[in-house]
Amino acid sequence: KNIAILAGDGIGPEVTAEAVKALDAVAETFGHQFQYSEALIGAAAIDATGNPFPEATEESCKSADAILFGAIGDPKYDNDPNAKVRPEQGLLKMRKNLGLFANVRPVSSYDALLPISPLKEHIIKGTDFVVFRELTGGIYFGEPRGRSEDGNTAFDSCVYSKNEIERISHLAFKAAQSRRKKLTLVDKANVLATSRLWRETVKELSKQYPEVELDFMFVDNAAMKIIQNPKDFDVVLTENMFGDIITDEASVISGSLGLLPSASLGTKSSLFEPIHGSYPQAAGKGVANPLGAILSAAMLLEYAFDLKEESQIIKDAVAKSLEAGFATEDIQKENPKSTKEVGDFVVE
Amino acid sequence: KNIAILAGDGIGPEVTAEAVKALDAVAETFGHQFQYSEALIGAAAIDATGNPFPEATEESCKSADAILFGAIGDPKYDNDPNAKVRPEQGLLKMRKNLGLFANVRPVSSYDALLPISPLKEHIIKGTDFVVFRELTGGIYFGEPRGRSEDGNTAFDSCVYSKNEIERISHLAFKAAQSRRKKLTLVDKANVLATSRLWRETVKELSKQYPEVELDFMFVDNAAMKIIQNPKDFDVVLTENMFGDIITDEASVISGSLGLLPSASLGTKSSLFEPIHGSYPQAAGKGVANPLGAILSAAMLLEYAFDLKEESQIIKDAVAKSLEAGFATEDIQKENPKSTKEVGDFVVE
Ligand SMILES: CC(C)[C@H](C(=O)O)[C@@H](O)C(=O)O
Ligand SMILES: CC(C)[C@H](C(=O)O)[C@@H](O)C(=O)O
Repeated sequence: KNIAILAGDGIGPEVTAEAVKALDAVAETFGHQFQYSEALIGAAAIDATGNPFPEATEESCKSADAILFGAIGDPKYDNDPNAKVRPEQGLLKMRKNLGLFANVRPVSSYDALLPISPLKEHIIKGTDFVVFRELTGGIYFGEPRGRSEDGNTAFDSCVYSKNEIERISHLAFKAAQSRRKKLTLVDKANVLATSRLWRETVKELSKQYPEVELDFMFVDNAAMKIIQNPKDFDVVLTENMFGDIITDEASVISGSLGLLPSASLGTKSSLFEPIHGSYPQAAGKGVANPLGAILSAAMLLEYAFDLKEESQIIKDAVAKSLEAGFATEDIQKENPKSTKEVGDFVVE
Repeated sequence: KNIAILAGDGIGPEVTAEAVKALDAVAETFGHQFQYSEALIGAAAIDATGNPFPEATEESCKSADAILFGAIGDPKYDNDPNAKVRPEQGLLKMRKNLGLFANVRPVSSYDALLPISPLKEHIIKGTDFVVFRELTGGIYFGEPRGRSEDGNTAFDSCVYSKNEIERISHLAFKAAQSRRKKLTLVDKANVLATSRLWRETVKELSKQYPEVELDFMFVDNAAMKIIQNPKDFDVVLTENMFGDIITDEASVISGSLGLLPSASLGTKSSLFEPIHGSYPQAAGKGVANPLGAILSAAMLLEYAFDLKEESQIIKDAVAKSLEAGFATEDIQKENPKSTKEVGDFVVE
């Protein structure tokens, strides 16, 4: 199996290295062969080629069986809102060009981390839901977008077709079928035309999944309910921008953003990445939490290669490292371990 | 002083009645004269006139010195995404026609309610910030919006002008000046053209407020930070849709949505409303929390009439009712009080 490695910016390279170590350990134990090809993306790619998602990287992704991604983003671009080339463009172009339309983010609580969550234990203990966020449509990509000629007005467009809504909805309904059979569509149908199309389309589709209970929630209400009653959710389905916001919000449930993996699925490619982003302040210090990246490798094994046992063994090792209190500083204030030490523990 | 009363739908009429009682008590104690004129809005207005924001209501608002608003929304419209007339249209039309461009939502923790918040006490104790949400622009109002001819594609437009950004930003900077001098702009400048205009404009404007520390935060990150470190915020400034989401999210800090008031300010009119919405399941049962509405009346006295002492006396009475454990079922699980009983206690 070929895996493209896009380590990217900030802490991306450090955490991806630990994920690769975990994959290697699995390969050795189970007798698999994983071949890696590294490619540039983000600010690292801009520095080297002027392009945040170079063609060589796209080729590398397209010829791989799965993609393991670190993070992109560099503060030097955030402070220059009009920079012509920005790392995020590479990420968005990659999602679009590889057709990665469904971003899947599981959210669960870890008993060992209940003390460090900002939420009370009885609220989060037992939380287990998964968010399906549409990833290649909506206001992230809609045209027209830009500035008026005089520069005094800016505009973005949110656009969705029935087709775009249907393909991710099928995945979400199927996930619900194999889980607790509940699907919540999060939208703003009381204001947005696109949300009304989502509601209409998903309602229509739900006839094909009669055993799944479908409900609708406005995004403002959902932002509240995810904190108040996270255990009420099973599968959450939503559009690109709302998904961006509520998945990051939901990450507080686990106690650390550093823990959360994600999968981005398309018809031809699939990509796996921790949701934490490039966290530039921590880059190079050996303090970044590698578990999000390592769990992304576990998702890769399950979703891209259908290697369930191999995936589970990684997840178990991660749970063990947390139970043992063997964790980086985001989780373990006293006597924190380094990125590499945590990676080694998981491999062990 | 003339106050237009727009009680609206669901629990709106019940909670507004208690707010009026509080205003009357203040008027009597301090020797003021408040005249009320009631007008229709929302589903109630559709039922009576076919129009969710009838002209008579608009006139009534325009000739009033301030507007006290309850809530709008009725589930019979939510299940019909293509209904031509919907209550929310009345709310949005009102905001637009009255030019209520700045929605101000204070968020603070109440010591008496720390036990019922889903967040841990050390996280929220001492929280005190205020969100300035732009209310008449962005994706709520941008054109074009609607469906393609074949019905298979839907679109919304997010549009902002420099002007729209500046007028609310001035209010937010001024608020920061009189508070802890920190302003956080929440946007998605790594993706949206409108957000880049926000960032650019606010940065430029900040030169006029050198004593205010300005920082920028992506909305996904803000959705996380508001839960993790709510005490870090002082004044939050953001566009319409992001404001909708993060203010509802932030409401969990107080322990109950039923507690939170808001002001919507324009150049000619100002409107005050609890943020809880119409909560149809509770309508007519006498269980709705009137404190959000009562605190909205307190904001009205302060913002619209500059009656600071009168405003404070209401806020103190609300705090007392909470300390006394004299509260509705959203707060007080055992032996909850009715809407009216809580209103009477505050008046007393
Ligand atoms: C970096 C940014 C463009 C990206 C997004 O908004 O999608 C990130 O927040 C994410 O969620 O992967
Ligand atoms: C009812 C709805 C249209 C409204 C909004 O989204 O602005 C509400 O959620 C609010 O925040 O006042």
